Amino acid sequence: MASTDLNGECKVDVIVSDKPRKRAHLRKEGKNMKSHIEAFLVKIWKLGKEDPRRLIHSMKFGAALSLVSLLYLIDPLFNGVGDNAIWAVLTVVVVLEFTAGTTLSKGLNRGLGTLMAGFLATCVSYLSRHAGEVGHAIVIGFSVFILGAGASFARFFPTVKRRYDYGVVIFILTFNLIAVSGYRVDNILRLARVRLSTIAIGCGLCLVISVLVYPIWAGEDLHNFTAQKYEDLARSLEGCVQEYFDGPGDEVDEDESDKTSAEDVIYEGYKSVLDSKAKDESLATFASWEPRHGPFRHRYPWKQYVKIGANLRHLAYSIVALHGCLRSEIQTPDSVRSVLRKPCLKVSEEAAKLLRELSCSIRHMRRSNSGIMMEYLQFALKDLQTALNGLPKHFNNLRRWHSDKNKGIQSQIDQQEEPINSPNEEIQCCAMSLEEPTTTRLFRRGVSLRDQQQDEGKSLSHTQSHVSVEEKSRGHSIEYAEELPLATFAWLLVESVVRIEHVVEAADELAMRAHFKTCISSHHAKSRKASMKVSGPETPRNRVLESHSTSQSAE
Amino acid sequence: MASTDLNGECKVDVIVSDKPRKRAHLRKEGKNMKSHIEAFLVKIWKLGKEDPRRLIHSMKFGAALSLVSLLYLIDPLFNGVGDNAIWAVLTVVVVLEFTAGTTLSKGLNRGLGTLMAGFLATCVSYLSRHAGEVGHAIVIGFSVFILGAGASFARFFPTVKRRYDYGVVIFILTFNLIAVSGYRVDNILRLARVRLSTIAIGCGLCLVISVLVYPIWAGEDLHNFTAQKYEDLARSLEGCVQEYFDGPGDEVDEDESDKTSAEDVIYEGYKSVLDSKAKDESLATFASWEPRHGPFRHRYPWKQYVKIGANLRHLAYSIVALHGCLRSEIQTPDSVRSVLRKPCLKVSEEAAKLLRELSCSIRHMRRSNSGIMMEYLQFALKDLQTALNGLPKHFNNLRRWHSDKNKGIQSQIDQQEEPINSPNEEIQCCAMSLEEPTTTRLFRRGVSLRDQQQDEGKSLSHTQSHVSVEEKSRGHSIEYAEELPLATFAWLLVESVVRIEHVVEAADELAMRAHFKTCISSHHAKSRKASMKVSGPETPRNRVLESHSTSQSAE
Repeated sequence: MASTDLNGECKVDVIVSDKPRKRAHLRKEGKNMKSHIEAFLVKIWKLGKEDPRRLIHSMKFGAALSLVSLLYLIDPLFNGVGDNAIWAVLTVVVVLEFTAGTTLSKGLNRGLGTLMAGFLATCVSYLSRHAGEVGHAIVIGFSVFILGAGASFARFFPTVKRRYDYGVVIFILTFNLIAVSGYRVDNILRLARVRLSTIAIGCGLCLVISVLVYPIWAGEDLHNFTAQKYEDLARSLEGCVQEYFDGPGDEVDEDESDKTSAEDVIYEGYKSVLDSKAKDESLATFASWEPRHGPFRHRYPWKQYVKIGANLRHLAYSIVALHGCLRSEIQTPDSVRSVLRKPCLKVSEEAAKLLRELSCSIRHMRRSNSGIMMEYLQFALKDLQTALNGLPKHFNNLRRWHSDKNKGIQSQIDQQEEPINSPNEEIQCCAMSLEEPTTTRLFRRGVSLRDQQQDEGKSLSHTQSHVSVEEKSRGHSIEYAEELPLATFAWLLVESVVRIEHVVEAADELAMRAHFKTCISSHHAKSRKASMKVSGPETPRNRVLESHSTSQSAE
Repeated sequence: MASTDLNGECKVDVIVSDKPRKRAHLRKEGKNMKSHIEAFLVKIWKLGKEDPRRLIHSMKFGAALSLVSLLYLIDPLFNGVGDNAIWAVLTVVVVLEFTAGTTLSKGLNRGLGTLMAGFLATCVSYLSRHAGEVGHAIVIGFSVFILGAGASFARFFPTVKRRYDYGVVIFILTFNLIAVSGYRVDNILRLARVRLSTIAIGCGLCLVISVLVYPIWAGEDLHNFTAQKYEDLARSLEGCVQEYFDGPGDEVDEDESDKTSAEDVIYEGYKSVLDSKAKDESLATFASWEPRHGPFRHRYPWKQYVKIGANLRHLAYSIVALHGCLRSEIQTPDSVRSVLRKPCLKVSEEAAKLLRELSCSIRHMRRSNSGIMMEYLQFALKDLQTALNGLPKHFNNLRRWHSDKNKGIQSQIDQQEEPINSPNEEIQCCAMSLEEPTTTRLFRRGVSLRDQQQDEGKSLSHTQSHVSVEEKSRGHSIEYAEELPLATFAWLLVESVVRIEHVVEAADELAMRAHFKTCISSHHAKSRKASMKVSGPETPRNRVLESHSTSQSAE
């Protein structure tokens, strides 16, 4: 029934045209929903694939809950425990965690807290019963206040916070439960006993499931995580030096993604180390609750991993500084960089090898060959030092060539005998970089160079002589400013190596305190002696090769 | 009755002499106990003094527990709620946390989890009742498994972990409580209602106490912590540069503790920033749960603080690298360092001023004068650049002087007109450092220098000529190796300034997004115009001075 007036027509039109629009809208929403669900499923799949133990933990959790629910669901069991079975269920929900260490820590905390609070609450209740009804209530209220305040303050102690936080919460909880609800119950001992026993059932189930059924150990996690960090840093350090000298700009221009992926490798490498403090500490705490398992004996030095973590973070800071050099505004021209390319790459290669060896030795719990590899690193460092010492001469030559060119003695250079290293390209690069004054690049913000020149020149009347002086000094200064980044890079690399020493020391200390096995067996020692007789005195190269073969056989 | 035989006498002796020993032992233990108790009390006192809000929180916690216990202790209240009052008590124990944001987050999570689980459990229970007794038990057991496994897997999602972890735990807990214990209860709706209402009582009490009674805001904590970090880094940066140039070794030789205290200042400054990630993120998460309070409006950009934190950490990494320069094995002699002393100190001073201004502007929620101060920092940077450019000339002079000295033309230098900067001392320093070859210091470990010389010289027969060549090259090289640390230090300082730019940008973004007030009022703007007429065009110095006075009045 469409009305004939304009407004009515309009209304009908709107209603008619709305239907397909609504349908389209619904279809669109349906599609959106579908894509959302798909994305969600993909997320779940990824999460499970990243660490399949997550799926296993979920299954274990569900199974534990179902098992403890049987206390309610099966009549004979329910008759034994009664309504209080719910505490066992609650215990499983709260205590069963991902790693065995966390579960153990929480379970023991819960047990200990309940025990102490139960004892104290029973005492308080018994004593306060002699104080009359009102007195009883007052004593209980007051003791709840005192103990609650005290226990919540205790949680601020760092040691308590780290190891017994959950125990303190359970202590307050149980104390309240028994002391307060005991006010209405005659047989308070029974109440305490039932609470203890149901919690014991829950904790026991959790411990059995987490320790015996496909256990996930915090200690193992920490161990592997630490070994991984060494590898990550090795990759990061190598990536940094490689990108600085070979750069992604040379051959990879056609493929933009490679640059970002190279950056990612460097960044991802040190990122996990930088943010590892909290993870290290919590894993070490939980690992210390775990019983001996696999190769980890009782009283295993888990704290040493925290120390190693601190040293690795320190190394990571200098890799961050190195990485900063890649991105800094002023850069040494590629041609100049090439002077230090080989020694720097050598140092990074040796350092990465050393870090990987440490990673491997920790992963397989054997002593590392760090001593020999350290010597190789020192050799490489010395080469770098020699190259660094040669830098001034190189720069002087460049400068001389540049000033010669300015004087117009171009022909003289053409006649010079030049190596394959294409000095022309080198010089062009240098000259090109001279075109854009370094200062403008450094001081993008703030006052422009022109202001400075005005300040220095005061007036533009004697521009000619002024510019020539300026240029002369600038020609010299810019080269020096462009030497700096390279020298800084090399210096930071040396600093990193110094920090690697500390990392090596920490790893060696772990190997000693955790009694890692030595990798050279008696058989190998014999064959080594025999080979020494043949090949003459032991050189570091021989030793490293030999140790490599040994480590391979140990793996 | 002492026996007369030797053994008996001995026994008596032992018994007699044991008594005073035991007493002494007891006295000693008593003293030990006393000192332990004293140390414990001092610890409590320190903990409370460090942050008095801890004491207040403890009092609040105790009071809340006593209040909620009244549900049990006062007859009319107990008659209303009954035995289930214990859930209210448990809720208070678990939900009431230090900051209001944490309490709100936990309370809302608990409420939401309970509501959803209660609804779902009631549905499951009702539906499964039609499946017969055995079927009922099986359906419940199966649903517990599925939901338990699903919920525990959901906790691995980073978003869920960050914001809803506690809610998921409560969801599982409540679902089990109602679905499982509902198996034995006829009126399951009543069970769900009672659980909801008691939890609501507990949560309500917690929220009232944490939000209305001396509230401790996570947002405020985060805000002040961020401002503090700026200050810490300023102190650290300034301390680093000051120690590098003025060093604790000069005047402070007589007081050893000063050196460590200076180191402490630097270390403590950046340490809190390096380890701030977890704290920043959790505080930002909890702050986002908080209602508007004080100057923090609704939808305040808390995430920006996390971003600022990341930028500050990045700055802290380069300060760590700077700090590393202080401790490195090879050092530029003090005399050579003095060339860059003034410009470096100026840069650090300006940078610290800028950081402090940012800290102050965040603390007082006003826009900063960073633009102007940035210009000053750029001026200081330019001075440093100029000084850096002058370095090669300086070193060349030093080298020339050194080679002249080697040729025995000492008298020539004595005749030279030298500035007050005591070149003799400078040169002595340089010469002193030449005595110990840099290479030995760099390569403490590994192969000694002698081996290297043997390798290079092959034999010691033509030592004389060899040594002269060695010395000549080394005389040059060592100076260059000693230039490097200084140049690196200066370069890292420049890098730090570049990172400060990012920090400034992040702070400016916060000021914009959080609508910080501008510090120049209309009154000030008028007086500024008037002063401009008198003092001529606005120079940066004027602007900074003015802004300083403005900021002081704003404080």
